[in-house]
Amino acid sequence: MKVTTLGEIMLRLKSPGHERFMQSPSLEATFGGGEANVCVSLANYDMETDFVTALPENDLADACIRQLRGFGVGTSNIIRREGRVGIYFLETGANQRPSKVIYDRAASSVSLASADEYNWDKIFEGTTWFHITGITPAISAQTAEVTLRAVMEAKKRSITVSCDLNYRKNLWKYGVAATKIMPKITEYTDVVIANEEDCQKSLGITNDTDVTSGKIDDSKYKELTDKVMELYPNVSKVAVTLRESISADHNNWRACINNGKEFYVSKKYEIRDIIDRVGGGDSFAAGLIYGLNTYDSDTKALEFAVAASCLKHSIEGDFNRVSVKEVENLMGGDGSGRVQR
Amino acid sequence: MKVTTLGEIMLRLKSPGHERFMQSPSLEATFGGGEANVCVSLANYDMETDFVTALPENDLADACIRQLRGFGVGTSNIIRREGRVGIYFLETGANQRPSKVIYDRAASSVSLASADEYNWDKIFEGTTWFHITGITPAISAQTAEVTLRAVMEAKKRSITVSCDLNYRKNLWKYGVAATKIMPKITEYTDVVIANEEDCQKSLGITNDTDVTSGKIDDSKYKELTDKVMELYPNVSKVAVTLRESISADHNNWRACINNGKEFYVSKKYEIRDIIDRVGGGDSFAAGLIYGLNTYDSDTKALEFAVAASCLKHSIEGDFNRVSVKEVENLMGGDGSGRVQR
Amino acid sequence: MKVTTLGEIMLRLKSPGHERFMQSPSLEATFGGGEANVCVSLANYDMETDFVTALPENDLADACIRQLRGFGVGTSNIIRREGRVGIYFLETGANQRPSKVIYDRAASSVSLASADEYNWDKIFEGTTWFHITGITPAISAQTAEVTLRAVMEAKKRSITVSCDLNYRKNLWKYGVAATKIMPKITEYTDVVIANEEDCQKSLGITNDTDVTSGKIDDSKYKELTDKVMELYPNVSKVAVTLRESISADHNNWRACINNGKEFYVSKKYEIRDIIDRVGGGDSFAAGLIYGLNTYDSDTKALEFAVAASCLKHSIEGDFNRVSVKEVENLMGGDGSGRVQR
Amino acid sequence: MKVTTLGEIMLRLKSPGHERFMQSPSLEATFGGGEANVCVSLANYDMETDFVTALPENDLADACIRQLRGFGVGTSNIIRREGRVGIYFLETGANQRPSKVIYDRAASSVSLASADEYNWDKIFEGTTWFHITGITPAISAQTAEVTLRAVMEAKKRSITVSCDLNYRKNLWKYGVAATKIMPKITEYTDVVIANEEDCQKSLGITNDTDVTSGKIDDSKYKELTDKVMELYPNVSKVAVTLRESISADHNNWRACINNGKEFYVSKKYEIRDIIDRVGGGDSFAAGLIYGLNTYDSDTKALEFAVAASCLKHSIEGDFNRVSVKEVENLMGGDGSGRVQR
Amino acid sequence: MKVTTLGEIMLRLKSPGHERFMQSPSLEATFGGGEANVCVSLANYDMETDFVTALPENDLADACIRQLRGFGVGTSNIIRREGRVGIYFLETGANQRPSKVIYDRAASSVSLASADEYNWDKIFEGTTWFHITGITPAISAQTAEVTLRAVMEAKKRSITVSCDLNYRKNLWKYGVAATKIMPKITEYTDVVIANEEDCQKSLGITNDTDVTSGKIDDSKYKELTDKVMELYPNVSKVAVTLRESISADHNNWRACINNGKEFYVSKKYEIRDIIDRVGGGDSFAAGLIYGLNTYDSDTKALEFAVAASCLKHSIEGDFNRVSVKEVENLMGGDGSGRVQR
Amino acid sequence: MKVTTLGEIMLRLKSPGHERFMQSPSLEATFGGGEANVCVSLANYDMETDFVTALPENDLADACIRQLRGFGVGTSNIIRREGRVGIYFLETGANQRPSKVIYDRAASSVSLASADEYNWDKIFEGTTWFHITGITPAISAQTAEVTLRAVMEAKKRSITVSCDLNYRKNLWKYGVAATKIMPKITEYTDVVIANEEDCQKSLGITNDTDVTSGKIDDSKYKELTDKVMELYPNVSKVAVTLRESISADHNNWRACINNGKEFYVSKKYEIRDIIDRVGGGDSFAAGLIYGLNTYDSDTKALEFAVAASCLKHSIEGDFNRVSVKEVENLMGGDGSGRVQR
Repeated sequence: MKVTTLGEIMLRLKSPGHERFMQSPSLEATFGGGEANVCVSLANYDMETDFVTALPENDLADACIRQLRGFGVGTSNIIRREGRVGIYFLETGANQRPSKVIYDRAASSVSLASADEYNWDKIFEGTTWFHITGITPAISAQTAEVTLRAVMEAKKRSITVSCDLNYRKNLWKYGVAATKIMPKITEYTDVVIANEEDCQKSLGITNDTDVTSGKIDDSKYKELTDKVMELYPNVSKVAVTLRESISADHNNWRACINNGKEFYVSKKYEIRDIIDRVGGGDSFAAGLIYGLNTYDSDTKALEFAVAASCLKHSIEGDFNRVSVKEVENLMGGDGSGRVQR
Repeated sequence: MKVTTLGEIMLRLKSPGHERFMQSPSLEATFGGGEANVCVSLANYDMETDFVTALPENDLADACIRQLRGFGVGTSNIIRREGRVGIYFLETGANQRPSKVIYDRAASSVSLASADEYNWDKIFEGTTWFHITGITPAISAQTAEVTLRAVMEAKKRSITVSCDLNYRKNLWKYGVAATKIMPKITEYTDVVIANEEDCQKSLGITNDTDVTSGKIDDSKYKELTDKVMELYPNVSKVAVTLRESISADHNNWRACINNGKEFYVSKKYEIRDIIDRVGGGDSFAAGLIYGLNTYDSDTKALEFAVAASCLKHSIEGDFNRVSVKEVENLMGGDGSGRVQR
Repeated sequence: MKVTTLGEIMLRLKSPGHERFMQSPSLEATFGGGEANVCVSLANYDMETDFVTALPENDLADACIRQLRGFGVGTSNIIRREGRVGIYFLETGANQRPSKVIYDRAASSVSLASADEYNWDKIFEGTTWFHITGITPAISAQTAEVTLRAVMEAKKRSITVSCDLNYRKNLWKYGVAATKIMPKITEYTDVVIANEEDCQKSLGITNDTDVTSGKIDDSKYKELTDKVMELYPNVSKVAVTLRESISADHNNWRACINNGKEFYVSKKYEIRDIIDRVGGGDSFAAGLIYGLNTYDSDTKALEFAVAASCLKHSIEGDFNRVSVKEVENLMGGDGSGRVQR
Repeated sequence: MKVTTLGEIMLRLKSPGHERFMQSPSLEATFGGGEANVCVSLANYDMETDFVTALPENDLADACIRQLRGFGVGTSNIIRREGRVGIYFLETGANQRPSKVIYDRAASSVSLASADEYNWDKIFEGTTWFHITGITPAISAQTAEVTLRAVMEAKKRSITVSCDLNYRKNLWKYGVAATKIMPKITEYTDVVIANEEDCQKSLGITNDTDVTSGKIDDSKYKELTDKVMELYPNVSKVAVTLRESISADHNNWRACINNGKEFYVSKKYEIRDIIDRVGGGDSFAAGLIYGLNTYDSDTKALEFAVAASCLKHSIEGDFNRVSVKEVENLMGGDGSGRVQR
Repeated sequence: MKVTTLGEIMLRLKSPGHERFMQSPSLEATFGGGEANVCVSLANYDMETDFVTALPENDLADACIRQLRGFGVGTSNIIRREGRVGIYFLETGANQRPSKVIYDRAASSVSLASADEYNWDKIFEGTTWFHITGITPAISAQTAEVTLRAVMEAKKRSITVSCDLNYRKNLWKYGVAATKIMPKITEYTDVVIANEEDCQKSLGITNDTDVTSGKIDDSKYKELTDKVMELYPNVSKVAVTLRESISADHNNWRACINNGKEFYVSKKYEIRDIIDRVGGGDSFAAGLIYGLNTYDSDTKALEFAVAASCLKHSIEGDFNRVSVKEVENLMGGDGSGRVQR
Repeated sequence: MKVTTLGEIMLRLKSPGHERFMQSPSLEATFGGGEANVCVSLANYDMETDFVTALPENDLADACIRQLRGFGVGTSNIIRREGRVGIYFLETGANQRPSKVIYDRAASSVSLASADEYNWDKIFEGTTWFHITGITPAISAQTAEVTLRAVMEAKKRSITVSCDLNYRKNLWKYGVAATKIMPKITEYTDVVIANEEDCQKSLGITNDTDVTSGKIDDSKYKELTDKVMELYPNVSKVAVTLRESISADHNNWRACINNGKEFYVSKKYEIRDIIDRVGGGDSFAAGLIYGLNTYDSDTKALEFAVAASCLKHSIEGDFNRVSVKEVENLMGGDGSGRVQR
């Protein structure tokens, strides 16, 4: 069992506390990015993982690799080439003020690398599950090509492929729409992961839920996921996260899964003091991959994924620093937050 | 269009996070003060502004001016004279524990400056709106005289005058009661801004609402604002902020306006994770000034003011670091706090 | 009136903010420990106090004593001997993620000191109230012996003894169960303080309340406290704190007292943005001791204790940095958290 | 009198203290860049200045402009266009370990802007002195074109032009050598500023001084500057900074000037505890511009420049935060560092 | 043996590291002031001490007292009255840039208190040594009167009086020259402590040493101290600190003493990496008081004082946090700074 | 080529900057320990390494392992068992004030583990060089036994053994003298590393150099190292570091090596602004191991070791974060510290 992911890992520069950008002359500097976040989560669950990306030859990239390796994530398929370390700037919202992301990914090494620079044979050696997100093809024409090639190479080797559609409106700036690329990628995907609006924005499948109202109508998600599976018969499971956003620090969090046989909606978690919401979706994807590979029931896998990502909202940084035991405690019902001593 | 304000800007020394005073050997050091806060808000909305005050000739005062100028606030009418930079110490409360302010304003330059030290012709050149608060006359006999002189000079030049009554029980220590001074100032005021208890404490107009209970009865505010306009026929509009204080970090926030023709109560915002409440009233005043100068309806101006000051509760420091676009987004209904990326 | 306590004071090393352990290379370093916390609270209420413990001869222990002395706590009965300063590492939870404590108390000076090393005559000279907790006998065979000896020496001198049962599942590792020691100590106790599960875990008295469910059934506590007083006729009062733990940052907080004549349940406080929960129980004990020594009614004493400990949840660190006036304000009904300025 | 400069201002991200990159998850975030540094210095000397550059439309660029404006630097000729805010990462050395800079300037707005995007008439309106450095043409083909155009436009308007040759080996990556561009720029320059190796690397004029040995032979600099003036008869003055680098924190600092009539070597300052060396050369250039515009002697101008830049080594950040009075005190001989109180 | 001092203790607000004022929005906040510094030093040497001052009734003053008490300094003669806590702002220099102090002491409680507010009987009960400095009479007419009264009251009770002349050019602003007051105080003084220029500025005794040159001529100090003892026959000892200021972080440090019989110059310490120079003189005074009360030789007392104050230059904050053992180690010759492990 | 080391890795808790212990409520928290430091250095030079120790099962130990793994150090032979993570507290000196270490290692997992708990076959599989220090046997009787067993097991497998004698006066508290254990270990050692006083304190070989005087007489070291090789014929090389300690921040640094054929003294580095001296000796040992395994000359290996450890003095933390290229640059003569940009 080995999970491989491919994508961009960035330097994440966050203003302190809830400050607006540059209110103080200081930035919190960590690393993160959708696919790397999935690897770190899985490594924290003691799974074997490998993260594929392109990074330049400099001290920042070295530090990034050092951190991934510390978590136990495989880094031997990271190629070093011209370009920058991509950056994203983050300002944390509160109440009615949303968090804000400034992407600074132009000319990053991963955005410049072509599909042929990667050694697909080496990358997929021993891999049993390959995970990709809709962020990578949104970066550049090259990354779109790389993503498509990657899922094709994975399928050629009978590796299970999961894709988190993950639509980002501030990316997709290189002249091609998400709906031109994501459907192709979905054709090679076994497990589709999405949030409320991803299916529409990425696959063009309409769903009349109003995301900003904060209310979610479950039956709509049964229809929506049925539609995905109908259009993409290769897809065996579709999982959708259902976030009710009351305010920047108060969300309700659940998810549903449709495996063609049953449609199941998880337990709901009320999260009233969000510490860090970024990486929440990635921690769900990682939880689902862990669950589907560990438990014999899709509903239990879903509950693990939802509990894991619920906990992520209480953890600073992109990475979900929790153990299987902590997730299972929450699944088992103890969300009272009593001090462990 | 140019808004001028006059008042004291202080060094604001806050204990870190929610710590009590001097729990750690560190203080967050920024600048703030009611009228300066209004200027900074308006400058952030791209309005021309000028801030009038007195400061000593030292590096702290220089830094203060540098900061105002950075926001685009006019600083050419700041006089430099003997005295100190005033200070206020702040400790941020939580839950049932209130925030605490220690004023340290004795012998500040502004408290010592007399009305004749200011060049009123130069100050009001080009000014179309003059804003003042009840804090300035509360500092010293000199500032009371300066405030009164300022509104008289403004009216002489047909400038619109707004006054935020802003009663502070820990000021007014120099031997004269607020109710001796504020009524005189109100006689030169076009737009009165107040909170729940200001009218009583500053103008002596009784209103039997119990502020500490947290419940607010709207009809009382119709009566109250009618009474103000009756007593001061020069006043064309009275706006009152209505804060329900559930706890130090949880307030409900609305306001009402009475323009003689209609009485309108705004939308209510529930703010459950207050980041910094200081400057909330100032951000309302600034929003109202912006709104009354921009929109053709008093109710829209009020909604802008309430939304702007709602956002202030999520911003660290005295200054409301938000743009017109951000305020209008919230007015338009999106308070879900979803990450902008 | 002089209150003496005996126990371990530790270096408290907390990860910054809500970070998990070692996420950043920094730890907040303060001091704390159940019995010392009680002394500091009482000193903040202007009571005479003395804290008895054993510490090594090094700079950390010196700093610890300097801090206690700063609060006005008596430190002249602290013995200096071989061993370490005990440590506890703390990570602050949020939402569904609980706070976590790692005890690092092995080989601490207090854990190694025997009962004969303490000068009981000097310790109890002038003492009118002696307070102890169930944490001290949980550390080592020596501390169990010291605790028992201490209450016997106190009773010999007709000093009132209070004991906070305070069960800690991660202590009691030296081979003896709490239920072997705590009943003996209770035989010398006048005032028993406990939380929901302490009576069961420490005295073996069963009570079918489910703590993790978050719901509390008051009648159960009448029965429970009656049972304690029946089994220990020397006990004149039993006070129990009732914490409903909705999440790591949201608790409801009350307490009850049974003095043999009446059973009284206090006002309930909803605490939605917990800053620091550690030391909450100690602040209750201190409040109760203050109250019982100050007011002529047990119910008023209880209300003081509950209000004091409610405020503790808003204060960073183990120590409850509040004054009698602040507690009485909250008892008097002002929990609106309005800025004091 | 108005000094205009044109160049790139970057976000400067420095690791804390003397830490290597990413040793802690934190970066100090300020702004800086050769030409902007010159403007800030001059604004601190109360000269009128204007900084020309290109920046994107985002919150980082806004913060950058806010900071420049705070110092009083003119920002009305900054164009906003596609691209990034350039970044440089800085790690501060000590002893034998050098400081390290990672440039992250690819795709910055200024690197993409063409000469026609700038409004030269508006830029040079009122300008009496124009300053440029060898860093700008080193960024991209576009910036090389812009720089050349700028000096031509300036000369067309009879504005005095100064150029700090400022060779950076980690730039000039776009396929053209410094020696192809800098000579052309020098043809439009009145005052050339250089360090020990700039003349060679930028103008191809050889000089057999060994920079890394730390020893400097003055007579060589007479020859060198004579050669520059011979080759570029339009150049009326050449000033060269002479840095003896004993270690990363210990430098000796002087400069010389050749105005065709006399060759003068300044006083030497021994700087043994360098706080921040970056921006040292820029503070020299600014000091020289101030001096040449203020004093009637080139040697006094040089001494001002050397003293100003000596002080810069004791100031954190790119900007030289000193006043004319502080520089003149040092020129006047008081370098004893006695506390001013 | 009990040493009493009287003076002002201030909030000391320092910019971080070597930053100029308000470069970052943060200030280090500790307490300090000449006479309090002496008490803390002596308390660290296990001497009984008492610090007399006036402070307001607020949380800052409480924190200040808490800190003094923590060190073991007596605080029972501190009077609480109207006024502020005095403040001084500090910016730490480097190399040729001097440290800078902004005094913010106007209207402090101590500056307003009159001599009759102090209870001289209670203050001097048990006191064997009284120490005063030239800073206190420099604050206001009231403090000048208090200081004079204090030394008279002390002498009336046959208490040894020491006075550190301590001339501060930025004080003495209330209309009376130092040379009008200090001679009167000196008439009640047994031990005079001074630095190079104090005798001239405070007592009007000329001495042609040029302080800013950095060179010190010993023979001049023999003459100077002889002159003091001639003019003030009541003075039994005069000690003068001799600071050669090479730069802000590099000083040479020695002192001399004249006891009427012998003139002795101490060992010289070269201090090349000054951490904090403020409080250096106070640590010398404290060392001298300790030495004169402990050793049987004035020269040994002087060497203790010089070694103690040498160490102070390596300690952050006003207070000299060293033990007798550490000072004696340095006196004994070990200044090699080898790690103690 | 694979280097294995065995020892204790501790949590290193340092007071901020140059502060004394607990001056602020904060500690810098990293990891370090002699043998682990050697592994990290070697990993930074791209050598294969493995670190053997015992740690408890808790989050601190997990974080420690995560960090080692991040550097690429092998961690698969770390055993997890009862006990604590050892701690050392560090306060950084300056000038005449020495740095201070408080060891807090009692009851650490490694101090309790017996030799049989380690799997020697697995540990030494593939190992070509084994490194040990005199610190490990100084901790407890168990660690002494483990160290001896380790070198015997290594020699049994013909692995080269190096030992850094590293005498620590604050350890060796368990009742056996260093001179009873270290000679036995030296009998199994090929390469002995020592500082000026280690040979005397560990092996009982006298050498009349006075370490604290700061002066070093080279010829004494020829004699001393000859004596070691005479007494221990199995030893093929002895390297001694020669530190002249001028003050806590100013040391001169060299070393010598004796390989039986030649005695060679390295270049001397003057280090005037020491950032962190702890781990200096370990970085020398690592440099020597790297050098002896890489270069064909012992003198070049020594120069690498001295240059590497010279650089360590400029790096914060126990670990020497430098690359082979950086060390070789310094060996090649560039110690001028010029900015790399």
